[in-house]
Amino acid sequence: MNHPTVKSIASPLFLVLLLGLSVATAPAAPQSDDPPPRPYGEISRKLITSGLSSGRAYEMLGELTGTVGARPSGSPQANRAIFWARQKMLDLGFDSVRLEKVMVPHWVRGPIEEAYAEPRGTRGRVPLKICALGGSVATPGGTITADVIQVTSFEEVRALGENGRGKIIFYNRPMDRSLISTFQAYGGAVDQRGGGAIEAAKVGAVGVIVRSMTTRLDDVPHTGAMHYADSVAKIPAAAVSTVGAELLDSLLTAEGSVRVSMRLSCETLPDVEQANVIGEIRGSEFPEEVVLVGGHLDSWDKGTGAHDDGAGCAQSLEALRLIRAEGLRPKRTIRAVLFINEENGLRGGTDYASRDRGGERHILAVESDAGGFAPRGFGVSTAPAVLEKDSLIVEKIAKWSYLFEPIGADRITAGGGGADISPLTRQGVPSVGLRPEGSRYFDYHHSDSDTFDKVNERELEMGAAALAILCFVIAQEGL
Amino acid sequence: MNHPTVKSIASPLFLVLLLGLSVATAPAAPQSDDPPPRPYGEISRKLITSGLSSGRAYEMLGELTGTVGARPSGSPQANRAIFWARQKMLDLGFDSVRLEKVMVPHWVRGPIEEAYAEPRGTRGRVPLKICALGGSVATPGGTITADVIQVTSFEEVRALGENGRGKIIFYNRPMDRSLISTFQAYGGAVDQRGGGAIEAAKVGAVGVIVRSMTTRLDDVPHTGAMHYADSVAKIPAAAVSTVGAELLDSLLTAEGSVRVSMRLSCETLPDVEQANVIGEIRGSEFPEEVVLVGGHLDSWDKGTGAHDDGAGCAQSLEALRLIRAEGLRPKRTIRAVLFINEENGLRGGTDYASRDRGGERHILAVESDAGGFAPRGFGVSTAPAVLEKDSLIVEKIAKWSYLFEPIGADRITAGGGGADISPLTRQGVPSVGLRPEGSRYFDYHHSDSDTFDKVNERELEMGAAALAILCFVIAQEGL
Repeated sequence: MNHPTVKSIASPLFLVLLLGLSVATAPAAPQSDDPPPRPYGEISRKLITSGLSSGRAYEMLGELTGTVGARPSGSPQANRAIFWARQKMLDLGFDSVRLEKVMVPHWVRGPIEEAYAEPRGTRGRVPLKICALGGSVATPGGTITADVIQVTSFEEVRALGENGRGKIIFYNRPMDRSLISTFQAYGGAVDQRGGGAIEAAKVGAVGVIVRSMTTRLDDVPHTGAMHYADSVAKIPAAAVSTVGAELLDSLLTAEGSVRVSMRLSCETLPDVEQANVIGEIRGSEFPEEVVLVGGHLDSWDKGTGAHDDGAGCAQSLEALRLIRAEGLRPKRTIRAVLFINEENGLRGGTDYASRDRGGERHILAVESDAGGFAPRGFGVSTAPAVLEKDSLIVEKIAKWSYLFEPIGADRITAGGGGADISPLTRQGVPSVGLRPEGSRYFDYHHSDSDTFDKVNERELEMGAAALAILCFVIAQEGL
Repeated sequence: MNHPTVKSIASPLFLVLLLGLSVATAPAAPQSDDPPPRPYGEISRKLITSGLSSGRAYEMLGELTGTVGARPSGSPQANRAIFWARQKMLDLGFDSVRLEKVMVPHWVRGPIEEAYAEPRGTRGRVPLKICALGGSVATPGGTITADVIQVTSFEEVRALGENGRGKIIFYNRPMDRSLISTFQAYGGAVDQRGGGAIEAAKVGAVGVIVRSMTTRLDDVPHTGAMHYADSVAKIPAAAVSTVGAELLDSLLTAEGSVRVSMRLSCETLPDVEQANVIGEIRGSEFPEEVVLVGGHLDSWDKGTGAHDDGAGCAQSLEALRLIRAEGLRPKRTIRAVLFINEENGLRGGTDYASRDRGGERHILAVESDAGGFAPRGFGVSTAPAVLEKDSLIVEKIAKWSYLFEPIGADRITAGGGGADISPLTRQGVPSVGLRPEGSRYFDYHHSDSDTFDKVNERELEMGAAALAILCFVIAQEGL
């Protein structure tokens, strides 16, 4: 695309088109034909303009990912992240900056994770790119070696019966690429990662390998939480890259059976005291009414947790900074909460919601935990008990959609929220999740690919501005 | 974001939310409460699903960028691209595959482009990352060395008068970061690149350095077309990286004046015969009525022209492939045109529109030339002479917006089109430009950064599906 060519050959047309574009993408100024009044239009535009020209979310995310890096729950790096966030809130002049202590699990990957397929014949062993799933035990006795059985569902595992004994179960049901929502595709495959070890242990398997949760075909394994049940053996579980999964599948097709050796050195250490990091702009009229905005400070130990969820943390900090920088003083309190331990326990979110906060009332909880991509809208949820009010709450949020239209973030629909705020949702607090463009999220998610260079400055800052607008308007107008 | 945690703690809620999401993002199936009929809903969904699960735009773009690479007009690589595209159309089974010959300019960068700032004192010379602007002459006598004068507008150049003589004019007005539309920001700065050499020559300058057209701060120069006027001297013109521009600005602030030496070895060779590449699905009922979809096959010689405009070419090919793959036979002809020479001459677009095509009538021209990012909608234009019909045409396109809603590409507004189809627009053909998410486009545009790895498969395929839907529906229904 070469704009001056267009201009030189069709200049008057071009100007008209440019003006057309401008009108179409910016809130209309008051005109003689009396358009309906659009409250907060001017303030919203200022927040967007300020965010795009001098926002600091990108800088903050660069600091967090660059100086702290990966920060899994319980790790020294998570402590550093907590102190970094607290100091940042102080530097930004937030009111009432504090830590709320939370005991969190402390799982460590350890130095060794490797796997090899051992095809018959002369080919020798073939390395598979794997990583331990979060929470996995180590492989007992150093290395385990066993025949692999490929499955795509728990039903297939159960059908194995005694044939599963002593085997490594290889879960290879891909995320459904044909679905428009990558989150829905993830939701349709992730049971294999979360519950695969339990089901495999029930039939006597000695280990689990799960196809990485991504639609990309590459050689990067993606970790993520997995669970054990007390009633069955705890067997080691790893993710394999999608390239490795395809290779295993090919070998199984070619040879009927394949032996795999796998070694993991991960372990779970005693719980550690860490904290949620909290700071706010105190409401001028109704300080006890709180609009919460947050993300989670912990990440997995792969990559540097840039999109998951350094982005949401940086955006939450930036949302409050922007509001202050524009000299806005909200009637209700706007509180940033950077939660600890979203990835493998939700202890931060659970602790936050469980505390007695006196006369305080949360009127809205907002989370950004779907990546720092271009914002496209918000998903709105309420607790099951008040689910019939869902559409009402959606309407109450959606009436402000014109404020987000200039940046294309005006799709406000039912269904959303966030893991950290879900305990608040269950207490009846209306909850909103920022919905960014979702195409790329699972390319990076929980893997070495989730790094700062995958984040675009303008997209991140637009998301922060969208959070700032939503929080400020609800802090002024209530819900 | 760790989905299974949400699921495990709030499973019923989660399911409801997921269903909510599903309902919100997919076209509604017919229900008992009689929603309005939504023609083409099922076909559109199939095109999207098919594109996401087995689309080939990404594969084709990988081929074009990987086996052909950069393909500036007149180059042997552009010839290779033309033959690649023709063969691809044949392989895909398009009707009436042909080349339409076009004489195109042939500018070559040459082996040398370098510049140094020469601050006073002991610091020695400081390299600046530059690249010749497309169309520039070489620096006469090998290297030019001159004092730099920084300006931000043509007015400032004119005000220099005799003080400009013998100087290098340094245009340093950045793209306005605060604008939401990066294309608008580009439009507000690119006069410096296109016309800067002419204005500088008028005051006797010996060369021009232009700040790269990007909001990113990095050390990658961005090329692009520049123009000369016969009435003034042709002086060499280069783009400098934004880091280099900031450095020059700092040196000028610190030292008052800075000498720069610059060497460019570019030249313009005789015109070369190349071609537009054309293939179609012939209409079953009204074959003489044509819906055109295209992009431009030439790129700049930096990077591999992945987003600009390999993406648009791959998407245009894929749009027709998808329609055929779904077994659809349009009533009107759907024609893919891969234009040559958009970047520095528009000879392909001009030639295409100027040919006598007998009784053929173009009812719509669609172009994808704004990057292969997630599609967000379409911009619609008509010629100035029929501009009063603009809103009518927008309405006629916008009535199909529900078909694009599932993928979030339903923003259909006035103002758009594309350079290659602009000669058709001026002849009265309604024109549409695919509008993708625009945040990242100018990070890569016309630079070594515009490579295949910057393209996301799903985003590219969704854009192709959007083109397929629009073209097929208009080919069936007319406009």
